[in-house]
Amino acid sequence: MLPEFSDLDTFRTLLSQAPVTDSDAVAAAGERNMQLTKPPGALGRLEDLAIWYAGWRGNPRPVIGAPQVIVFAGNHGVTAQGVSAFPAEVTEQMVLNFQHGGAAINQMARAAGARMDVHALDLDRPVADFTQGPAMSEADVVAALNAGWNAVDPSADLLVVGEMGIGNTTSAAALCAALFGGAAQHWTGRGTGVDDAGLENKARVVAEGVARHAATASDGLDVLARLGGREIAAMAGAIAAARMLRIPVILDGFICCAAAACLEQTQPGALDHAVAGHQSAEAAHAALLQKLDKAPLLTLGLRLGEGSGGALAINILKSAVACHSGMATFAEAGVADG
Amino acid sequence: MLPEFSDLDTFRTLLSQAPVTDSDAVAAAGERNMQLTKPPGALGRLEDLAIWYAGWRGNPRPVIGAPQVIVFAGNHGVTAQGVSAFPAEVTEQMVLNFQHGGAAINQMARAAGARMDVHALDLDRPVADFTQGPAMSEADVVAALNAGWNAVDPSADLLVVGEMGIGNTTSAAALCAALFGGAAQHWTGRGTGVDDAGLENKARVVAEGVARHAATASDGLDVLARLGGREIAAMAGAIAAARMLRIPVILDGFICCAAAACLEQTQPGALDHAVAGHQSAEAAHAALLQKLDKAPLLTLGLRLGEGSGGALAINILKSAVACHSGMATFAEAGVADG
Repeated sequence: MLPEFSDLDTFRTLLSQAPVTDSDAVAAAGERNMQLTKPPGALGRLEDLAIWYAGWRGNPRPVIGAPQVIVFAGNHGVTAQGVSAFPAEVTEQMVLNFQHGGAAINQMARAAGARMDVHALDLDRPVADFTQGPAMSEADVVAALNAGWNAVDPSADLLVVGEMGIGNTTSAAALCAALFGGAAQHWTGRGTGVDDAGLENKARVVAEGVARHAATASDGLDVLARLGGREIAAMAGAIAAARMLRIPVILDGFICCAAAACLEQTQPGALDHAVAGHQSAEAAHAALLQKLDKAPLLTLGLRLGEGSGGALAINILKSAVACHSGMATFAEAGVADG
Repeated sequence: MLPEFSDLDTFRTLLSQAPVTDSDAVAAAGERNMQLTKPPGALGRLEDLAIWYAGWRGNPRPVIGAPQVIVFAGNHGVTAQGVSAFPAEVTEQMVLNFQHGGAAINQMARAAGARMDVHALDLDRPVADFTQGPAMSEADVVAALNAGWNAVDPSADLLVVGEMGIGNTTSAAALCAALFGGAAQHWTGRGTGVDDAGLENKARVVAEGVARHAATASDGLDVLARLGGREIAAMAGAIAAARMLRIPVILDGFICCAAAACLEQTQPGALDHAVAGHQSAEAAHAALLQKLDKAPLLTLGLRLGEGSGGALAINILKSAVACHSGMATFAEAGVADG
């Protein structure tokens, strides 16, 4: 169903040929919206969400019945620089926790009626420390993009991708600084909870990585290879696959959005099928959402990753679509329309 | 199970004797929260919500399995003053729509897994135009409070109350101005969508009502009788009953919060078992939430009423409690805790 790729240039070509929204479905959904038994605009942003969803599904009266949550895990050589409050072993321990149903994302996915999949990517082979050289070779990043690309269920009708990877807020900060410019400090936050000295060290590591790689990277995918990680590339691959399959995406927090930004900086418009599920408490996420021009659905101070903020927003989108497709029109209900 | 009342003074006494949160359950839930497999605080406001919910349920590891949404409908004599963009007949037409499952709140309640009840309160007998005299006699307001009080399912574990009543944003604005002071314009918004001239007229009507009744009202319940409506009093009665039954409440928008404010201004702390589900686009709701010291869970531009914003927030609270009660501890999962 999905085309294949074995190098970055082919992936770039696929991105450039991705489908766009169905303007007929958008128009028909907009017309239906105006006939529903409520004052015009009274459901606020839910109305826009439902129409947007209808466009991507090519159906003016869609339903959401099969959301998928995928969590990708990867390890980072940059943890050798002391950038995290948790040891690298926690990545694998948390993967087991995901598999046993004990993590936050398991409860969130269940509450949202979503299928959940976990993909651990070569945890025993961390990507290289980007202060020493590129995090990934082209073969590595292509393999990770493919892991995400092939993890999306073609029968899903909504996708959330999340991650686990000790060290990956450092990687995400470096991606943002390389993609958008600005000081390393601007993009560096506390992640799982480093102290002030840890934060300073982390910003220094980010600056070092960016100085080493940013000037020579040709686009977002090149930045991704040099400063990213397998789970980050896999999220990008899954978001791109969802676009090919016309499956709308709810973005999670800082790391997910950094992955997404690599696509957008490679192919403008690559995230038109995605909304921002939430604004994380990770310091730079608000700035990143602004760069992506995405307004978050939720701002509840989450900073966990795992896809948790995206999964929490599934029910918002479900409710929006349920109202749009399930409500009676003024004519059907015999209600005077003002 | 619930005590009875047949006058406002007895209701006031019941409010003053209402149960408080279970501090042992709060402490035990707080301790559990610190052991869950996530960095401390990483679930942000969801952690506070889960602990708050645990306290009111008296259970450090609660579940939410039986939410109830109740919509109360009433008519308002003040519509004679031309305050709404919709004719008064729409109240009854929308009640039929609720009963047939065609309204937004029906879809929202279903998406939240909530039971939904509709109570139409003497629609053929609107409360009096408050610019001419008190909206309700003591007997009227006590009957409406009782309608709400008795509508709460004692086996529910979460409550959302909503309303339908053409003219009731005018009544809610008058309640707020009488309870909190400030100009009528400050509390008056567009409701279902009046134009600029309509807005000016509406503020004039609010000012007239407040001038007539505010100085002589003794407390929030007295204000409720003079400027409220049956569906507003019923919401207040239901919120108070939920407190007696230790059922946490998610508040909806401007009108629901105006009803709630009548309780809080009568008995400070009367809303400790309630959270704000959302911040409505109705202009004065943000100011009202500040007066109530409640931070909204959602801000998505809704301004529909019916309980829609409260119902939309049910899944947020459900997810918070599901994480709290369903996640593994660090010890259970064999994860290093930093």
